[in-house]
Amino acid sequence: MGCVNDGEAVVSTLRVGVIGTGVMGTDHAVILDRFVSGAVVTRVSDVDGDRVAAVAARLSGATVSPEAFALIADPEVDAVVIASSDATHAGLAIAAVRAGKPVLCEKPLAPTLAEAADVARTVERDGPGLLSLGFMRRFDPAHVELKTALAAGACGAPLLVHCISRGVSSGPGATSESSITGSAVHEFDTVPWLLGAPVVEVSWHAPRRSGEVDGLQDPQLILLRTADGVLSTVEVFLNARYGYDVRCEVVGERGVLGTTSQAPVIRDAAGTRSSGYPADWRPRFADAYRLELRAWVDAVTTGVPTPLATSRDGLVAAAVSDAVITSMMAGGGWIAVAVPTEGEGG
Amino acid sequence: MGCVNDGEAVVSTLRVGVIGTGVMGTDHAVILDRFVSGAVVTRVSDVDGDRVAAVAARLSGATVSPEAFALIADPEVDAVVIASSDATHAGLAIAAVRAGKPVLCEKPLAPTLAEAADVARTVERDGPGLLSLGFMRRFDPAHVELKTALAAGACGAPLLVHCISRGVSSGPGATSESSITGSAVHEFDTVPWLLGAPVVEVSWHAPRRSGEVDGLQDPQLILLRTADGVLSTVEVFLNARYGYDVRCEVVGERGVLGTTSQAPVIRDAAGTRSSGYPADWRPRFADAYRLELRAWVDAVTTGVPTPLATSRDGLVAAAVSDAVITSMMAGGGWIAVAVPTEGEGG
Amino acid sequence: MGCVNDGEAVVSTLRVGVIGTGVMGTDHAVILDRFVSGAVVTRVSDVDGDRVAAVAARLSGATVSPEAFALIADPEVDAVVIASSDATHAGLAIAAVRAGKPVLCEKPLAPTLAEAADVARTVERDGPGLLSLGFMRRFDPAHVELKTALAAGACGAPLLVHCISRGVSSGPGATSESSITGSAVHEFDTVPWLLGAPVVEVSWHAPRRSGEVDGLQDPQLILLRTADGVLSTVEVFLNARYGYDVRCEVVGERGVLGTTSQAPVIRDAAGTRSSGYPADWRPRFADAYRLELRAWVDAVTTGVPTPLATSRDGLVAAAVSDAVITSMMAGGGWIAVAVPTEGEGG
Amino acid sequence: MGCVNDGEAVVSTLRVGVIGTGVMGTDHAVILDRFVSGAVVTRVSDVDGDRVAAVAARLSGATVSPEAFALIADPEVDAVVIASSDATHAGLAIAAVRAGKPVLCEKPLAPTLAEAADVARTVERDGPGLLSLGFMRRFDPAHVELKTALAAGACGAPLLVHCISRGVSSGPGATSESSITGSAVHEFDTVPWLLGAPVVEVSWHAPRRSGEVDGLQDPQLILLRTADGVLSTVEVFLNARYGYDVRCEVVGERGVLGTTSQAPVIRDAAGTRSSGYPADWRPRFADAYRLELRAWVDAVTTGVPTPLATSRDGLVAAAVSDAVITSMMAGGGWIAVAVPTEGEGG
Repeated sequence: MGCVNDGEAVVSTLRVGVIGTGVMGTDHAVILDRFVSGAVVTRVSDVDGDRVAAVAARLSGATVSPEAFALIADPEVDAVVIASSDATHAGLAIAAVRAGKPVLCEKPLAPTLAEAADVARTVERDGPGLLSLGFMRRFDPAHVELKTALAAGACGAPLLVHCISRGVSSGPGATSESSITGSAVHEFDTVPWLLGAPVVEVSWHAPRRSGEVDGLQDPQLILLRTADGVLSTVEVFLNARYGYDVRCEVVGERGVLGTTSQAPVIRDAAGTRSSGYPADWRPRFADAYRLELRAWVDAVTTGVPTPLATSRDGLVAAAVSDAVITSMMAGGGWIAVAVPTEGEGG
Repeated sequence: MGCVNDGEAVVSTLRVGVIGTGVMGTDHAVILDRFVSGAVVTRVSDVDGDRVAAVAARLSGATVSPEAFALIADPEVDAVVIASSDATHAGLAIAAVRAGKPVLCEKPLAPTLAEAADVARTVERDGPGLLSLGFMRRFDPAHVELKTALAAGACGAPLLVHCISRGVSSGPGATSESSITGSAVHEFDTVPWLLGAPVVEVSWHAPRRSGEVDGLQDPQLILLRTADGVLSTVEVFLNARYGYDVRCEVVGERGVLGTTSQAPVIRDAAGTRSSGYPADWRPRFADAYRLELRAWVDAVTTGVPTPLATSRDGLVAAAVSDAVITSMMAGGGWIAVAVPTEGEGG
Repeated sequence: MGCVNDGEAVVSTLRVGVIGTGVMGTDHAVILDRFVSGAVVTRVSDVDGDRVAAVAARLSGATVSPEAFALIADPEVDAVVIASSDATHAGLAIAAVRAGKPVLCEKPLAPTLAEAADVARTVERDGPGLLSLGFMRRFDPAHVELKTALAAGACGAPLLVHCISRGVSSGPGATSESSITGSAVHEFDTVPWLLGAPVVEVSWHAPRRSGEVDGLQDPQLILLRTADGVLSTVEVFLNARYGYDVRCEVVGERGVLGTTSQAPVIRDAAGTRSSGYPADWRPRFADAYRLELRAWVDAVTTGVPTPLATSRDGLVAAAVSDAVITSMMAGGGWIAVAVPTEGEGG
Repeated sequence: MGCVNDGEAVVSTLRVGVIGTGVMGTDHAVILDRFVSGAVVTRVSDVDGDRVAAVAARLSGATVSPEAFALIADPEVDAVVIASSDATHAGLAIAAVRAGKPVLCEKPLAPTLAEAADVARTVERDGPGLLSLGFMRRFDPAHVELKTALAAGACGAPLLVHCISRGVSSGPGATSESSITGSAVHEFDTVPWLLGAPVVEVSWHAPRRSGEVDGLQDPQLILLRTADGVLSTVEVFLNARYGYDVRCEVVGERGVLGTTSQAPVIRDAAGTRSSGYPADWRPRFADAYRLELRAWVDAVTTGVPTPLATSRDGLVAAAVSDAVITSMMAGGGWIAVAVPTEGEGG
């Protein structure tokens, strides 16, 4: 780590390389650069040269790496953030771990269970604890308060969970499977994290299909059964159009706890009372991303324990995704979730 | 009908007999007595003699009938409201129809499909149009506004519906089946009424069970598929304890429409912002019951068409209930809804 | 009263004459005709012959009176509703009281304090209790729940009250004074009714003026001091345009109680979450008007005590209006409220 | 400024001294330490030695200065945050400016107009632009969105503003005057900042007094008139007890814009729907404080223009406070706001 002797004060600075400068990677890089003390983004890389140059120019101390694996190997990089396309996660994560560098990998760990198992095995063997996974809802104040209240018994024993995950539009290349591995996978981590019980079986269902994108089953409805018997409904709707809207409601024996959509301003005009929705996840989860990056930098630099998701959590979520896709292929029956044990699958 | 010549004004008064003076029947009788001009409750009956006497005393012109079938036959009764226990509906409805008297029967038409079919056949044969069924949500301003907005395209083509039906506590004798035939049956009418498409298949699921009532599967989660491909989720939770809470949300291609819980007063105190839930359905659906009774009296006295549910609607809802119970017995698979055709089943 | 012998049941029917068939009078006539048992509208009158004929045709037993005083004198009229223009209230109310007929007079009792005092004196002398005044908020479920919660100590001792009264547009002929005597007068009754303390001094203030109507000071801000020391702010804004919106918030030593705007349906679309406002007072206060008319008919036919406002309440509110107008003329200082004692002012 | 050569990346670090380690100063120090890249807290000071030592221990690179003026003079301090008691602001601010060090001073600039004028003159003469004032609402996302929407014409021309500022309890030593200079002063900056028009006259009013604190007029109601004719109501209530609640509503010719209380979680239990209020300003304005400190560090290190309030803004707000106190002393009449011109008052 770079160090600066500032009079008596010795400040350690974690030098971070960010792979991928799309919406997500840029957001991470800017947050690190501006709102996480003790970290500096030194390198960025992307397949799009113009895009990465523009992002580097916005940062206070970053230069462009020619290529992701070169970034990982760069001695000016102490730790790595992976925010490139889902298909590249596994290979980059394995490379970072093998290089002994702490890595924060955006979800999913990998789009397939086999790849996720590869990563998890590599971490276990070559760098236990080196990989954290970007399930940022664990840092979202609403989700944290929900979990805290649930644990305090505010709604009694949980019985049912209702999750809604809606976005404005699916990106290019979205498929019915990527809706599961790339979007619903958040809920596959959130639900067991909230309940303290793993997902044991799943069932997939197709609502009437939006005509927005040809060939895409959107929305989808997924049922999850956790080991405690709780049943969860998960609606994933990439092209909901009206706004970015993620909500979670836990129904318990004595009450209900639910996260809310927070709108800062109400407008009364033209016969209506209205408030705005964010266009994407960044405003909704701005706190979560900042607190996640803060926790990650702390964990890397000081070893303080955090609620960051691990490679094991990523593997478990991938196993749920795999079971949901199996249910989808089979037309909707209940499918048991099978998490590969260590040594398996390779 | 009784008539009064009041100078020039000739006012027709519909003489109504109310069978059953529990919570529901008493509510109907008092609303008719106080808030529906042109109707008068002349007779009430109930198996509980003290209870029915007390209710009669609250009404402006009612006396107690010794027995329900005697009430139906009474010449001072022009029309009948049936609000006795579910198991008695079919026999009483058939008697009223055979006596040629208009009848407003509380839901369900009958707790079994066979009985419902009996009633529907009797109405078809002996008194077409004489029976209306108390699916009062068709008169609830929130549900009516939702249906109107949906028809106006406010959310685009519907894709998914989410229904929540929660009460404070199940009454005595509630069973897993009666949760379906007596409570969820509301949604079995509401969903196709909103969408303009019949329910064609259903699937039943058991969340973790509340410990509130031994032997009762509560809550329950039911999926409905309508002929238009829309998928609906229905949560029925009789012992939700926190309050009476019924909501319906329609997710469409371009937006979402949902009914709200309406609280008249907000209180800020002791670190919280709060508003009250009703303890049962009466405050929540007070407008709906009054408007339903108003429409029924109008229909009977003037023949004006109304959105009142018919015996056919009741039969269709009973067929959905029957399919849901079949799914429950079978452990949760999809079951097709089969509505008996006329002449069938007898 | 007309009576009908319906077998054993003897039903008394109050024959009501409605003066004024504008928006308000029509609403009263239709509610009486449809939703208040035991009353029948037998006569209607209005200065606009076409309008009154159209309203009569909508009612079940009404004919048109040629003129308001003739209606009052008509033997087929047992009781009178006055909903004609504000300037006519006093003369008609006095005539009805002198004819010995119960009268429900729309607010205000009169637009000037002198006329209001005339009416109040006439009632005292010639027909104590015969006149009720249409301060319908006393029957609005939200206001009633607010008063009940306040009395139960839900927010501790009241210190401040904030009232908002906004409409879509001022009618023809609205003036800065009529905003006070015709609109803000509601708050002049509501605030002391809630607090149980009379208004003792007032202060008027002019915000920047809306350009909507030339020559009209709109909105206005009025401060009220009640005898308990509580300070109330009253915003009256006739041309708020966005919708009809009336709210009241009581700030107490331990919390706050406030009425809410009730919207039955929420719509998510085009980046916003929205709900509708009513275009005028009828949807907002539909329950209040029905319950007020119900209470009035009960009071007239059975003598049961009710929270209906009396001529004395109307006089007191007129005295507050008078003080506010004095403050307005004087440019905004505090003005003491002076309620004429009996025998005074004539 | 301290600099660190981290390979190619050269990162400038602003060394900040924080004066005052009460709730506010501690919050600033921790935010700077954790969430504002490019700044490090090197020195802290406080009159309470134990308290300051505990805060220093929480920070990554801070030591305790024996005394505030020593902290200002310390060569390891590039810039100063003043968060000590209100009465100390002026003297410390003047010292920092004379030392040529950028200073972010918590509001108010000073509790008296004369002192505020002293500071403003010193800044003008000795260090133009060196002082920023902590009116953090200029950075609160809700207030910023409100201002943006207002400027975009979302509610038409503004006519009225309603401000509510409530806290759980007044701190030790609160007086009727300090409620104005220390709390309401926020609104004295917010209102003209929103409207783009200065406050020209004010009027103070006393609601019934809470019994919570002897001798304190709490709540207070203040009217502000801005140069554009808009009238603003400001309720300040230090001992509202139920929670920290700050809201602002702008009423315009075509609609209303208002900030909301943001609650992340809703709980349904025991007959109520509820959400929590923060216990103080930190959760409510967490974003605002972070963004304010970020903007200040940027302004100091790079000279980028920001919406930070200036010493002039602080002087203007102090002049409004002064006029309000004059109105309070005089029993409530309208008082013109007089802002000392440069050279005046010394």
